[in-house]
Amino acid sequence: MSSVDVPVALLGYGTVGAAVHRLLEESADEIERSTGHRLRVARALVRDTAKERDFSPAPGVLTDDFSAIRDDPSIAVVAEVMGGVDPAGPYVLELLRSGRPVVTANKQLVARQGVELFEAAAAGGVQLRFEASVCAAIPVIKVLRESLVVTNVHRVLGIVNGTTNFILSEMEAGSTYDEALAEAQRLGYAEADPTDDVEGIDAAAKMAILATVAFGSRVPLDWVSAEGITSVQPGLVAAAKALDMRVKLIGRATLLDGGVDVRVGPALVDERHPLAAVDGAFNAVMLQGDAIREITLEGPGAGGLETASAVVADMVSVVGTTGTGFLQRDPVWQSLDALPAGALPSPYYLRLEVEDRAGVLAQIARELAAEGVSVARLVQQPADGHAVLHVVTHETPAGRVEAALAAIRKLPESRGAASALPVVSDRGVEELGWA
Amino acid sequence: MSSVDVPVALLGYGTVGAAVHRLLEESADEIERSTGHRLRVARALVRDTAKERDFSPAPGVLTDDFSAIRDDPSIAVVAEVMGGVDPAGPYVLELLRSGRPVVTANKQLVARQGVELFEAAAAGGVQLRFEASVCAAIPVIKVLRESLVVTNVHRVLGIVNGTTNFILSEMEAGSTYDEALAEAQRLGYAEADPTDDVEGIDAAAKMAILATVAFGSRVPLDWVSAEGITSVQPGLVAAAKALDMRVKLIGRATLLDGGVDVRVGPALVDERHPLAAVDGAFNAVMLQGDAIREITLEGPGAGGLETASAVVADMVSVVGTTGTGFLQRDPVWQSLDALPAGALPSPYYLRLEVEDRAGVLAQIARELAAEGVSVARLVQQPADGHAVLHVVTHETPAGRVEAALAAIRKLPESRGAASALPVVSDRGVEELGWA
Repeated sequence: MSSVDVPVALLGYGTVGAAVHRLLEESADEIERSTGHRLRVARALVRDTAKERDFSPAPGVLTDDFSAIRDDPSIAVVAEVMGGVDPAGPYVLELLRSGRPVVTANKQLVARQGVELFEAAAAGGVQLRFEASVCAAIPVIKVLRESLVVTNVHRVLGIVNGTTNFILSEMEAGSTYDEALAEAQRLGYAEADPTDDVEGIDAAAKMAILATVAFGSRVPLDWVSAEGITSVQPGLVAAAKALDMRVKLIGRATLLDGGVDVRVGPALVDERHPLAAVDGAFNAVMLQGDAIREITLEGPGAGGLETASAVVADMVSVVGTTGTGFLQRDPVWQSLDALPAGALPSPYYLRLEVEDRAGVLAQIARELAAEGVSVARLVQQPADGHAVLHVVTHETPAGRVEAALAAIRKLPESRGAASALPVVSDRGVEELGWA
Repeated sequence: MSSVDVPVALLGYGTVGAAVHRLLEESADEIERSTGHRLRVARALVRDTAKERDFSPAPGVLTDDFSAIRDDPSIAVVAEVMGGVDPAGPYVLELLRSGRPVVTANKQLVARQGVELFEAAAAGGVQLRFEASVCAAIPVIKVLRESLVVTNVHRVLGIVNGTTNFILSEMEAGSTYDEALAEAQRLGYAEADPTDDVEGIDAAAKMAILATVAFGSRVPLDWVSAEGITSVQPGLVAAAKALDMRVKLIGRATLLDGGVDVRVGPALVDERHPLAAVDGAFNAVMLQGDAIREITLEGPGAGGLETASAVVADMVSVVGTTGTGFLQRDPVWQSLDALPAGALPSPYYLRLEVEDRAGVLAQIARELAAEGVSVARLVQQPADGHAVLHVVTHETPAGRVEAALAAIRKLPESRGAASALPVVSDRGVEELGWA
């Protein structure tokens, strides 16, 4: 690839596609400085070439015929920014199999068909990059694949959905869930139908991609247990605050004893933990590994321009490294099992409603001890003639906590719900060793 | 480069060098998976080959003869982990000029001779990577050079010295400066002679490198104004706390109106700012740019294994991309001037001691207004028969603040010192736009 002029193509020309085109034009000099090549959008696939557009490409660039891109051997890299699984999936597979490097911003496509796409890229001897599919411009995929090659990353913790993080931040400031959601919709952070965000579906897809790349093993979307924030009550936010913690929707991917566990759900985050400080619509991902201890990346996790910036960075990286063998290999290299249900250890926050009389606390403590659940902190509050116990446990496998809760619910002294949420407090390092 | 076996060499074999060797051996499979190559340490330059070592390489690897590395054409990349400017500098220059890619962990070398080294690498058509020279394993150099090519980064804010951040964290918890320094020394975070850390000299070198790479222009070390933390009093830490801020040693590189300003010094950081949450010996760097708004990277900023991890990641990246034109170009591509003294705008914290009587506040307000310094918050405290004013200003050029302070010091009502510190509060974005 000695040519200075490098034709590239886009699949899709919506908000992100047009922004990619604009960034490529505005930054042609910067890209040439770092790679020696000038990237030029030669073709962009759209459904309707005649549609009015804010940013219109030169005549002849827009096409509604995929084969005009597929069959043009001069096109060095294709950016898929059309979204959806079909026809984006078949198009990308066809391009990769015929030896065309592809960059994609498509979270659902990578989460659902990533393994098949990686295989196709490896078979075609070309790169598939997908930075923009997770947290927009936060370069977590590049860092995992290129900077952390020799550090065995065993845990990924993330706030990977800005909508829910915004809503939870608003609830901390005093809003109800409904008020916070309405405000998020007003600001454009939440869709009219917010289901994908508030039920954790969007976060689950991102965590599946992160786990796949971090552990080098296939993590199907249906391995990811996802719970959203619709059940988070103002009382929980207040209880967390009283314990010097904050309620966050946390994605957590863990590699433990050769098993993988990936889950998304509300968690209490210690105020001193880096993820606690991630406010509003921002995202952050913490990577924990042997040689690095932990690295946290934070930034805006969405936005058209931010996503386009990641797409362009991937295109630049592809053009800058084509033909080297680097990242032309399948990133999925091992086959790990899912960790058995209940095996993942974590500290937990328990909320127990019990009768307010002598001996109850001892009874609760016995049930917890019987399942090996060790108490780190306990706060008792009176409430309407009964008592609410807020318990923070030491690290315990989830199954033990569930078993203890089941036993506690059966006690005659139990009143109302006994519930548990994971707590994020450790930083993967107890003491910062220094060499 | 189709060979699977890739000989590499080390200059230096101390803590970092031995850790690099060990990581390369332990992670040979991972590296082959991502690049197709197995990196093997063929040579390591040491002063005394007979010295006892914890981790001893195979016979014949250690050499005290630089020419054994320089003149071996099979060596694909050389990692400089010996430290110091001489002979490391001449060695690296000679290797680059003869077309050998180099990876270095040497902060002082890159800060002092970076521009010369970059030129030599570009002339030799090879890569010079230096991730480990700034904040160990936090991949800020890679992110700046490869992910943010098309986002004009105009500001870099960082906590880039773990020793001082640890000391300031301890002072917040109630220690005096001397107690905190002693504790840092006991834990191995601070040297017996802590001058380089506590006077901001170490941070200045890192900020010079970051500014050079972020802005693509030469930033000589002597452009960086550096102040350390030795003058930070417990009273300042308490005043910051009362204002919901924290005292941090902040490195700040700004590109403004075609001019560069790089400075290191104590600053008050708003509690809601991502850098406020960086505790203990950790480092963090925030990059602000057009398309990304802001991205923050946080992690351990020192440590033998962390540094070695960054060196190995660079070696892997060099081997994975050699011969592509990518990062074989000089990253210094423009020649910017230093911003005039006093031109950099920032919000400021002012501490003013004045007589405690009617009319003084009006007089102070007049002096501030005369220089265009606009007050955002003001707290007045009684102290030993006079008053202390804590003022937080809106964004103001440093020169205006200095002029106002000079005028205030001359007032008959002024008592004791009038001092100013920058405040870090904005996140580079007022409103998070969403496309």
